[in-house]
Amino acid sequence: MLLHMMTWAEVEAYLERSTAVIVPIGSTEQHGPNGLVGTDALCGEYIAKATGERADAIVAPVINVGMAQHHMAFTGSMTLKPSTLILVIKEWVESLAHHGFDRFFFVNGHGGNITTINAAFQELYTEQSREGTGGGNRPDIACELRNWWQGPKTNAAIRRLFGNRDGMHATNSEISVTQYLFPDHVKAGTEAMGPPSGVRGGWTDAADYRAKFPDGRIGSHPWEANPEAGKELYELAADELAELFTGFAARE
Amino acid sequence: MLLHMMTWAEVEAYLERSTAVIVPIGSTEQHGPNGLVGTDALCGEYIAKATGERADAIVAPVINVGMAQHHMAFTGSMTLKPSTLILVIKEWVESLAHHGFDRFFFVNGHGGNITTINAAFQELYTEQSREGTGGGNRPDIACELRNWWQGPKTNAAIRRLFGNRDGMHATNSEISVTQYLFPDHVKAGTEAMGPPSGVRGGWTDAADYRAKFPDGRIGSHPWEANPEAGKELYELAADELAELFTGFAARE
Amino acid sequence: MLLHMMTWAEVEAYLERSTAVIVPIGSTEQHGPNGLVGTDALCGEYIAKATGERADAIVAPVINVGMAQHHMAFTGSMTLKPSTLILVIKEWVESLAHHGFDRFFFVNGHGGNITTINAAFQELYTEQSREGTGGGNRPDIACELRNWWQGPKTNAAIRRLFGNRDGMHATNSEISVTQYLFPDHVKAGTEAMGPPSGVRGGWTDAADYRAKFPDGRIGSHPWEANPEAGKELYELAADELAELFTGFAARE
Amino acid sequence: MLLHMMTWAEVEAYLERSTAVIVPIGSTEQHGPNGLVGTDALCGEYIAKATGERADAIVAPVINVGMAQHHMAFTGSMTLKPSTLILVIKEWVESLAHHGFDRFFFVNGHGGNITTINAAFQELYTEQSREGTGGGNRPDIACELRNWWQGPKTNAAIRRLFGNRDGMHATNSEISVTQYLFPDHVKAGTEAMGPPSGVRGGWTDAADYRAKFPDGRIGSHPWEANPEAGKELYELAADELAELFTGFAARE
Amino acid sequence: MLLHMMTWAEVEAYLERSTAVIVPIGSTEQHGPNGLVGTDALCGEYIAKATGERADAIVAPVINVGMAQHHMAFTGSMTLKPSTLILVIKEWVESLAHHGFDRFFFVNGHGGNITTINAAFQELYTEQSREGTGGGNRPDIACELRNWWQGPKTNAAIRRLFGNRDGMHATNSEISVTQYLFPDHVKAGTEAMGPPSGVRGGWTDAADYRAKFPDGRIGSHPWEANPEAGKELYELAADELAELFTGFAARE
Amino acid sequence: MLLHMMTWAEVEAYLERSTAVIVPIGSTEQHGPNGLVGTDALCGEYIAKATGERADAIVAPVINVGMAQHHMAFTGSMTLKPSTLILVIKEWVESLAHHGFDRFFFVNGHGGNITTINAAFQELYTEQSREGTGGGNRPDIACELRNWWQGPKTNAAIRRLFGNRDGMHATNSEISVTQYLFPDHVKAGTEAMGPPSGVRGGWTDAADYRAKFPDGRIGSHPWEANPEAGKELYELAADELAELFTGFAARE
Repeated sequence: MLLHMMTWAEVEAYLERSTAVIVPIGSTEQHGPNGLVGTDALCGEYIAKATGERADAIVAPVINVGMAQHHMAFTGSMTLKPSTLILVIKEWVESLAHHGFDRFFFVNGHGGNITTINAAFQELYTEQSREGTGGGNRPDIACELRNWWQGPKTNAAIRRLFGNRDGMHATNSEISVTQYLFPDHVKAGTEAMGPPSGVRGGWTDAADYRAKFPDGRIGSHPWEANPEAGKELYELAADELAELFTGFAARE
Repeated sequence: MLLHMMTWAEVEAYLERSTAVIVPIGSTEQHGPNGLVGTDALCGEYIAKATGERADAIVAPVINVGMAQHHMAFTGSMTLKPSTLILVIKEWVESLAHHGFDRFFFVNGHGGNITTINAAFQELYTEQSREGTGGGNRPDIACELRNWWQGPKTNAAIRRLFGNRDGMHATNSEISVTQYLFPDHVKAGTEAMGPPSGVRGGWTDAADYRAKFPDGRIGSHPWEANPEAGKELYELAADELAELFTGFAARE
Repeated sequence: MLLHMMTWAEVEAYLERSTAVIVPIGSTEQHGPNGLVGTDALCGEYIAKATGERADAIVAPVINVGMAQHHMAFTGSMTLKPSTLILVIKEWVESLAHHGFDRFFFVNGHGGNITTINAAFQELYTEQSREGTGGGNRPDIACELRNWWQGPKTNAAIRRLFGNRDGMHATNSEISVTQYLFPDHVKAGTEAMGPPSGVRGGWTDAADYRAKFPDGRIGSHPWEANPEAGKELYELAADELAELFTGFAARE
Repeated sequence: MLLHMMTWAEVEAYLERSTAVIVPIGSTEQHGPNGLVGTDALCGEYIAKATGERADAIVAPVINVGMAQHHMAFTGSMTLKPSTLILVIKEWVESLAHHGFDRFFFVNGHGGNITTINAAFQELYTEQSREGTGGGNRPDIACELRNWWQGPKTNAAIRRLFGNRDGMHATNSEISVTQYLFPDHVKAGTEAMGPPSGVRGGWTDAADYRAKFPDGRIGSHPWEANPEAGKELYELAADELAELFTGFAARE
Repeated sequence: MLLHMMTWAEVEAYLERSTAVIVPIGSTEQHGPNGLVGTDALCGEYIAKATGERADAIVAPVINVGMAQHHMAFTGSMTLKPSTLILVIKEWVESLAHHGFDRFFFVNGHGGNITTINAAFQELYTEQSREGTGGGNRPDIACELRNWWQGPKTNAAIRRLFGNRDGMHATNSEISVTQYLFPDHVKAGTEAMGPPSGVRGGWTDAADYRAKFPDGRIGSHPWEANPEAGKELYELAADELAELFTGFAARE
Repeated sequence: MLLHMMTWAEVEAYLERSTAVIVPIGSTEQHGPNGLVGTDALCGEYIAKATGERADAIVAPVINVGMAQHHMAFTGSMTLKPSTLILVIKEWVESLAHHGFDRFFFVNGHGGNITTINAAFQELYTEQSREGTGGGNRPDIACELRNWWQGPKTNAAIRRLFGNRDGMHATNSEISVTQYLFPDHVKAGTEAMGPPSGVRGGWTDAADYRAKFPDGRIGSHPWEANPEAGKELYELAADELAELFTGFAARE
């Protein structure tokens, strides 16, 4: 159930049975030689939608540009500053909280967003909860962050399908999901990829990232990506997330 | 051509022939008894996409939540503060300008965004153009704002199809476009709508808006909306915008 | 009645009979070969003062620097960033609202301020009005923006006096008003002006503006400006605005 | 020479002989039983104007609302937050620096502004001067703050005229200056004032200020204010400030 | 070598042989029944100091208040908002970078700071590194975050000493370190502690945290803390961090 | 009594007998040829601690980096922007106010902080005190700023010990205090100092400061600094501040 496909009266009716909402968040950034720039936003948005269908829950509009500073040396990458992304996440939640939503389940498609999302949650808790010392047992608002690829079943499937060849960025698994979702946008030319860039060590700024990972990948073998693997991961992730959401929505 | 459906190398190749990009922007807010909460974001996004196809131009990710403070008394409406939306628009442009884009053509789906978009343009011009007094003839960056419903042909068609019954918010025409785009989400129950709220006078805050326009519409007759009208308007708007974009991209 | 020419006790007494206040806002920016840099601030301030006299209303201090980024390639122009101007407008209103004023009638002298003023109003409505869904019928605060040159009688007189030769910036009419108000500051040398810069097309940043309009004017013939025309426009505008203000102050 | 009474070409011509400018700053706040709400802004603006005439220097538009939080319990007082006032002062200076001004001489009418003005100067020095360690001998920009009442001759005259009866707020001397400048706005009813509020001790917030100084004065005897004293102080202050300005403008 | 115990000339001399600096960061927040409010700041500061001695490196002043919103229901806890802490971290680094430091090694004493520190690093990389696409091989600046308790040897010692009884907040190990460092401030009364609060599950806001962990601990047995364990951990952590710092400082 | 050396329960117990707290604030900046970079922070922190011991009062963590923009041309100096320091001071106070503290006594070690501290106090008064016009007699919060060197007895001792040779920056007296507190960090080589830089005139930015005061001192003779003088000043300052604090804490 997508918020933007409902009337306001339908949203009002939903709030009579549930105050929990799913919020997809992703990123628009390079994903290696054959990955889509929108991979993280698309995975976040579509897996969140499938989660909402399984859990009979409303899904808010996706936050489609995230924190991708370190990818900015690759054309097409977009980023918000962390402090701007904090504001955006807060106003997304504040808008929905204004109507009575109080449980916010973020489905995230981008590891680089995690620190900023958590910082936003802390500011929200400070500003939305006024009591100070705890009287009631039920928090005024609760926010939960889940990365779609980290549920135990999804993660096990990734390991089974791709092992260590999945890598850390522009992974086989996320590219598989987009190949399943958008068969018209499977990119050719993957035979031109060299061996994967090594996965060891970190990086600092965007120039350093590009110097270390010249085609954008970190340790992945995305020519192994395939729609069948994508379908399996997409279904597993949505199943796991729906179960997590249901528990979260019911929790006191 | 959607940015998020391209690889970074494809975006890089595009920049060799054009530095102009289309940016869709909308809003997530109540649209009366049978309008979708996402009407403005969906119209902005899909008409921008069609414009990009006609003009062979890249379309950036949509800014799907805009400035909708005055709709916040209706459940499901979302809003960014004007100062936050200024930041978002600026960082959208700055990210793309970082890669060499310098012509930004905004396709807007929401009248309430206009003031904020223009304020953002002013800050961008100040910060991105450093010379002060004009040396070269070609501006460093240029931004253009177009509302999809205001091209002369599109506007004439709206008048022919719906006359004054189109109204000012939750218009027959925008609801027609979403009915054409999303036939599975045409909402029933329109027979329950009373006569349209009057179009006279303004409003102040969200409570005042709701008191004056209790079902969310301003002067529209959205039970007249229909997919055929939507298709016509969608095609006309994309045609007109593609022509405007092409002129804008070529302008010195 | 000027706020800064009253004692605090006199302001307190005023609030017992009215909670409405007039706020002048202008700009400090180039106005072509013979226009004063302060034209917009002076027109805003003095027409607001005359409005206050006719309507027996308090006039707040003028906001004398506005949003004039696009004029910054001409010496002497000053500007606030849109986001700073939003803060200034908000704190002007918040200060007065703190004492019980709740109707704010802005008399504006500069077209370039319009978007920013409206953005500020939206933030004020959000922050000053807390109810959410509308209970009472009377909004907590109301803000109204009027440009002094756009009342129907004033506009008709401009057309009668100057026709299309009035132009869009450094207009015959605004320069006439300052010539009427400040006869000691009528600038000579207008014979040196060439033909008016064309009125077609827009502009982007300050350098682009100067390249297109090299002496600062847009389409005006300011050598036709004269104090008699200025007096007529000044009186008409104040009459119209006083009537509008009275209606605004009384409106529920 | 008032910036707002000049054409842009006249400002450009001025810059060929001087890069120094006078900036008046004041406040809009209660000034006791017979003082004008605009006392500080008016004193700042008019004494700056007289200074500019003596020194043949440009005077920028006045910053007419300052930092007056502690006066907000008296009707009509207005205030900017310190952090907003910092932005305003910075953008005033940045606008003028953009055109080549580099010496900014602030004539201040309000003691409560001092801390904020100095904080703004520090941010300006940091952002406008990039070298780090000192190469050249001439600073890129220089800012100077002068309170009109603190020159030695002006101060001596205040002591001679009013002694300790001048007080600390709503002083005899500043009210005298406004009585000289605005003879039509000399307020009657001063016989109703009781003995002056004591000058000892400080205060915290606005409510505390009002509790301690119920009619707004601190230690002053404003019924002694008179236009003749005002004229003397106004002339003395302008003379002293013009001399200080000339030295400041010439200093390496 | 503590920055604040050096003269400016000594710092200048240091920069000739190294551009790397250690930055301690902690928090001021409740640490259960017998833990000091300053535990995290003290551990960060003193272990950083010992690291600097081993590595012959400068240690900057400690950031002693961090992000501790979730502890605010316990008296004495202090917190900065994430967006303020981002500014503080950035200006700490920018100040030192101004003098030529370019390698910043953060020694952190508080898990709750991690997300905010990483967000600050991203903004620093964006703003301090201007090239965009990578030319040189050496990043302009590099920042590294290390939590003192997570080096492999330190962590192994914690497990050996306290096993799972160490808990997650107000841990046996951190309280041991402060008991070793400040023998005069070992708190009695630990016999009054009941069984440890469970370690399962998360929390939302401060009130929720207190409801779940009523004496502030999460799963720890701090009555087992002792100065001997503290000394061992302190030495091990400093050894490990000095080695990590040396590698970081040398890394291209 | 140092906040960071207490448990949360001990802080809670303190609040039952007093709601006043001492907050040390200093700076990290060059202090001439033989002064420590941390002089101001160390003096603030340690004199505040001694004050707390005499007055039986809690001392909060020190704000150890202040506003030192004008010292940034000397290696090792650190600074926060005024607007960031305002935020830090406010959140320090807000955190403590959250627990019930309402009297904040700042012991300051750096003249350059004064304007920013006072600006922060004004914002705190505005935001923490909501009533507007004064009802109750006791202010909600009160903040007091004291510079350690300005009590009458301390100041007299400085004059007796060093006369005019104390100077204005890197003073004999503050260096004496650090020599008393940190005998292991008394810097040699003072014979190399030339005559003191003159004390006349002001400065603008950091480069200008360094050009005028090439070794960092303003008018001081720090080779006269000695631990005995430091001890005397330290004791006197703590005595005076403790008396002032006690009066402040008791004041209605």
